[in-house]
Amino acid sequence: MVEYRFLKACRREPVDVTPVWIMRQAGRYLPEYQKIRGKTSFLDLCKTPELAAEVTVQPIDRLGVDAAILFSDILVPVEAMGVPLEFHEGKGPLLGKAIRGQADVDSLAVPDPADTVPFVMETIRILRKTFEGRVPLIGFSGLPLTLASYIVEGGTSRNFIKLKTLMYQAPEVFRSLMEKIARTVVLYLNAQIEAGAQAIQLFDTWAGILTPGDYEEYALPYTRMVVEGLRRDGVPLIHFANDCSTLLPLIRTLPVDVIAVDWRIPLDVASGVVGQGVAIQGNMDPTMLFHPPAKIAECVRDVLRRGEKTASHIFNLGHGILPPTNPDHAVAMVEAVHRYGKKA
Amino acid sequence: MVEYRFLKACRREPVDVTPVWIMRQAGRYLPEYQKIRGKTSFLDLCKTPELAAEVTVQPIDRLGVDAAILFSDILVPVEAMGVPLEFHEGKGPLLGKAIRGQADVDSLAVPDPADTVPFVMETIRILRKTFEGRVPLIGFSGLPLTLASYIVEGGTSRNFIKLKTLMYQAPEVFRSLMEKIARTVVLYLNAQIEAGAQAIQLFDTWAGILTPGDYEEYALPYTRMVVEGLRRDGVPLIHFANDCSTLLPLIRTLPVDVIAVDWRIPLDVASGVVGQGVAIQGNMDPTMLFHPPAKIAECVRDVLRRGEKTASHIFNLGHGILPPTNPDHAVAMVEAVHRYGKKA
Repeated sequence: MVEYRFLKACRREPVDVTPVWIMRQAGRYLPEYQKIRGKTSFLDLCKTPELAAEVTVQPIDRLGVDAAILFSDILVPVEAMGVPLEFHEGKGPLLGKAIRGQADVDSLAVPDPADTVPFVMETIRILRKTFEGRVPLIGFSGLPLTLASYIVEGGTSRNFIKLKTLMYQAPEVFRSLMEKIARTVVLYLNAQIEAGAQAIQLFDTWAGILTPGDYEEYALPYTRMVVEGLRRDGVPLIHFANDCSTLLPLIRTLPVDVIAVDWRIPLDVASGVVGQGVAIQGNMDPTMLFHPPAKIAECVRDVLRRGEKTASHIFNLGHGILPPTNPDHAVAMVEAVHRYGKKA
Repeated sequence: MVEYRFLKACRREPVDVTPVWIMRQAGRYLPEYQKIRGKTSFLDLCKTPELAAEVTVQPIDRLGVDAAILFSDILVPVEAMGVPLEFHEGKGPLLGKAIRGQADVDSLAVPDPADTVPFVMETIRILRKTFEGRVPLIGFSGLPLTLASYIVEGGTSRNFIKLKTLMYQAPEVFRSLMEKIARTVVLYLNAQIEAGAQAIQLFDTWAGILTPGDYEEYALPYTRMVVEGLRRDGVPLIHFANDCSTLLPLIRTLPVDVIAVDWRIPLDVASGVVGQGVAIQGNMDPTMLFHPPAKIAECVRDVLRRGEKTASHIFNLGHGILPPTNPDHAVAMVEAVHRYGKKA
């Protein structure tokens, strides 16, 4: 059995070189992705296993990263719950289910992934065959707070007023929504693990909109339900929250293997907060790929140097790679990690 | 001479009650503001001293806050530099000057405020007469990074790719832009102080998009130019940056009187970082005004309790009040601060 350096780093075992992958590495910045995307809608791409698998493989071929991540959208399980979902070019997702009261939450399902999103598991099975011995495959899901925010706001948001109004004015309704999402995510991720996902990343993109007090009261319990509901069986769990510097002491209470942070907190500072009992993933500012290539190596070395203070470091960007990024700059980053991340 | 509790708190002197004001307290959530706004464009409102003064007074009458802040827009001095500026309903500002190279920066002026924005100083003079003995008047300006981001992005932005691309790929051009803005801001704020502003708040809304390393290299030196260029003469300086939790150790190196923080960092934690040599302003989450009024008092008490750990606390929201806010909820907040913020 191959010992993937990415999985070893998740488990805080010694590695030859710091492993690296990139959030949204399969995506719009790659011309080969655009080519496939030109032939189909975004949601159809997510739902067609052969195509989803193909775009998952693309960045492995082009960048030489140390892990693949399933190509899908975090709203796939939300649609399966019964929330109408549309994507319009350049506008972000539109979700068509207003949550005004308990009846709206009650009308949502906790869907069986085998019935509603079999294409996700099929994509995973194809990819495991494709990758065997090459790279491990990461499955993923959004966490309840982030998925609830899409549902309640009806899409992306700036100030999350609808979400917080529900949270503050109808906490029972909010909590029942969060619980239903948590149960959905548990089923969804257990199905991914069963289908062959070798690690799981949990995304809480919008956690950083909350005060630490509100995060602890309204979000963390449902993340904990997800984490505790997974049949992990050795599959490492990565927790990523954007803009979470002041939430780290709370996130650290979760039994996860890896905590991923954005670029706002230097890795040595983050390591000081979370300690040596957990691996850290991150955290180059995605816009730093707009540096001239020579400077990118310098940025990589700074992140690696700070990463030496962590118990175990998996290199990544601090958020998803941006669509206008030059793929050659991403290649330069990965090469620099592999060159300067060699262990003595 | 009246000893305003707001100014005393800025100077870390003992006060009878914790002072409170609200960022964007003159604004769209107030029906009396909407009434005036209905008769004129937003920029004309900023540029007509009698009207700008009238909307500045409105929240003092309605809310009973302990300080007034000049009604204006942070882009007023940017337009004076020679950047065409438009506001379209519900779309945010549009700035019409691309910064592609040094020639574009060279074409911008460092304007004399007496020539270009005399209406600002006239508004201040009117307000000082109106308020004498009632509340002190805060003047303000955006800081160079935030103003540069509006100029380079041409408006608001999500990922600030244009700004960071300029910063990374043409640092000389970026630096000359920042320096020119800093010189503009110094003239602008000194004119406000001379006209009668009794405190100054510096806004760096977008500082939180940078890593601490980039903030130190590309933004902080120009903030320092501003701070050091002011003829303060006892006028307290407040520094506000949004999403700045991990930047606080750097911000603390500035010789300002008050550091304002957003809601992401509890005041007791912030106080632990910046120490007892500076006052702290903040930081209730603006969305907490969507709580039922009874709960708002609870939120206020939590912020006040944490504020007791600071050298001196000025109560505020952690960001501007949101347009859909019910004014009665803002009143409830101010009343709760004055009720529970009484000193023994």
